[in-house]
Amino acid sequence: MTTEQRRILVIGIGAGDPDHLTLGAVKAIRRADVFFIVGKGPEKSALTDLRHRMLAEHAQAGHRVVEVADPDRDRRPMDRSDYTSAVHDWRTRRADIFEKLIREEMTAGETGAFLVWGDPSLYDSTLGSLTTIEERGTVAFSVDVVPGISSVSSLAARHRIPLNQVGRPVHITPARRLSDVGRNEDGDIVVMLDAHESFTGFEGDDVWIYWGAYLGTPDELLVAGPLREVSDRIRQLRAEARARHGWIMDTYLLRIPEPDAEQA
Amino acid sequence: MTTEQRRILVIGIGAGDPDHLTLGAVKAIRRADVFFIVGKGPEKSALTDLRHRMLAEHAQAGHRVVEVADPDRDRRPMDRSDYTSAVHDWRTRRADIFEKLIREEMTAGETGAFLVWGDPSLYDSTLGSLTTIEERGTVAFSVDVVPGISSVSSLAARHRIPLNQVGRPVHITPARRLSDVGRNEDGDIVVMLDAHESFTGFEGDDVWIYWGAYLGTPDELLVAGPLREVSDRIRQLRAEARARHGWIMDTYLLRIPEPDAEQA
Repeated sequence: MTTEQRRILVIGIGAGDPDHLTLGAVKAIRRADVFFIVGKGPEKSALTDLRHRMLAEHAQAGHRVVEVADPDRDRRPMDRSDYTSAVHDWRTRRADIFEKLIREEMTAGETGAFLVWGDPSLYDSTLGSLTTIEERGTVAFSVDVVPGISSVSSLAARHRIPLNQVGRPVHITPARRLSDVGRNEDGDIVVMLDAHESFTGFEGDDVWIYWGAYLGTPDELLVAGPLREVSDRIRQLRAEARARHGWIMDTYLLRIPEPDAEQA
Repeated sequence: MTTEQRRILVIGIGAGDPDHLTLGAVKAIRRADVFFIVGKGPEKSALTDLRHRMLAEHAQAGHRVVEVADPDRDRRPMDRSDYTSAVHDWRTRRADIFEKLIREEMTAGETGAFLVWGDPSLYDSTLGSLTTIEERGTVAFSVDVVPGISSVSSLAARHRIPLNQVGRPVHITPARRLSDVGRNEDGDIVVMLDAHESFTGFEGDDVWIYWGAYLGTPDELLVAGPLREVSDRIRQLRAEARARHGWIMDTYLLRIPEPDAEQA
């Protein structure tokens, strides 16, 4: 009963705007003794800077910060089962790193926190890595999750649109699965993690796109319009922005008209 | 240039926990002169109370509150096109009410705010109603949206799970479309607005359900497990809770195993 455990907080910090932090996230940040900041590819420094600014503003005096590099991941084009196993392999190595952090960088009774971009529930692997460590049973800890504003919510808010049409589903998909999802769907489609401008190959003359990059930051870019008309402009903006920043993080909604609806 | 306009803020206030408010939502609440609170069916009083508590804590002194009743909606079972037109009809009447609020309860230069449960981008009609009013052109106003923590994010956080599996899509659907979505999908399914316990008819021996009601509130209920095994327990909990509170608001994730994955 009185045995003190390690406590892990997985805190969603929103999609780029420091004002996306919830009151619950601020309280959680205040409670933590140590923060684990995982650097991620080329966008590392911008995202890490934002986390440091949040800690400077909200964390308790004397908090510790441990930065680690994300393990490399095999990002060559590959088929679906190879992709899944590449991700699982990467996640195992990530779990090794996290396990070491939890075991060596905090003591029983302390609270450690991972600050997660967006919402921990959408296309983020932190919870998966922690589950892997729990299954190993090598170090005991509790997990609490603080939900955050995802880039998907942020995209919709900035375009001032709902994600769904009346009574219809919404599909959120990684770009590599867009062709599967798009073929069968009745409902709108949110595309994440699109390194290859998959929207350019999406069919349908009356499809609209709502696109956003660097959402919630001063560098934010927004384009909305008929996919056929604005597709080239988005490609150009992406290329310019990527050259300027060295990285890009974007997401978009494809609005699919109802089969029997009149044209807007 | 100096013409003052009416400003409308659509503020996502999260899924029931006052700590879901973002710092941006708190700032937006502080900026507003008048709040429009729309009562909604049987759950009206609990949801309205929460909004009043948030205003007491965060709104500027001297703010005004205007409460209006949501127009009735035809909720008899009906087919899809009737459903869509019933929603459109209801939305038109809602737009009439909102237009009157914007025209009569605030003056040019003032800021009015709608406090929206969850996230304004998911299955909420406030933005749709405002678009209808904009199209009428009868009163000029600007709209800004502050994203909020949806019940979907909240569900995932409380169960400490991601919504998606590695590399796979997530589908968010109203319960009335679950049978369409479930038949074709590869990926997990979040079900909203389920008045009829549609999960009981969902097929698949290895499907898991992560269910939550009154998320983020002291009355929160959570159940997770194999759908076949926990389905009856969820039905019983729903019936008891509904009798006790007079209303229920719940949502759930159906986790569909990958076709060729080994069983967990």
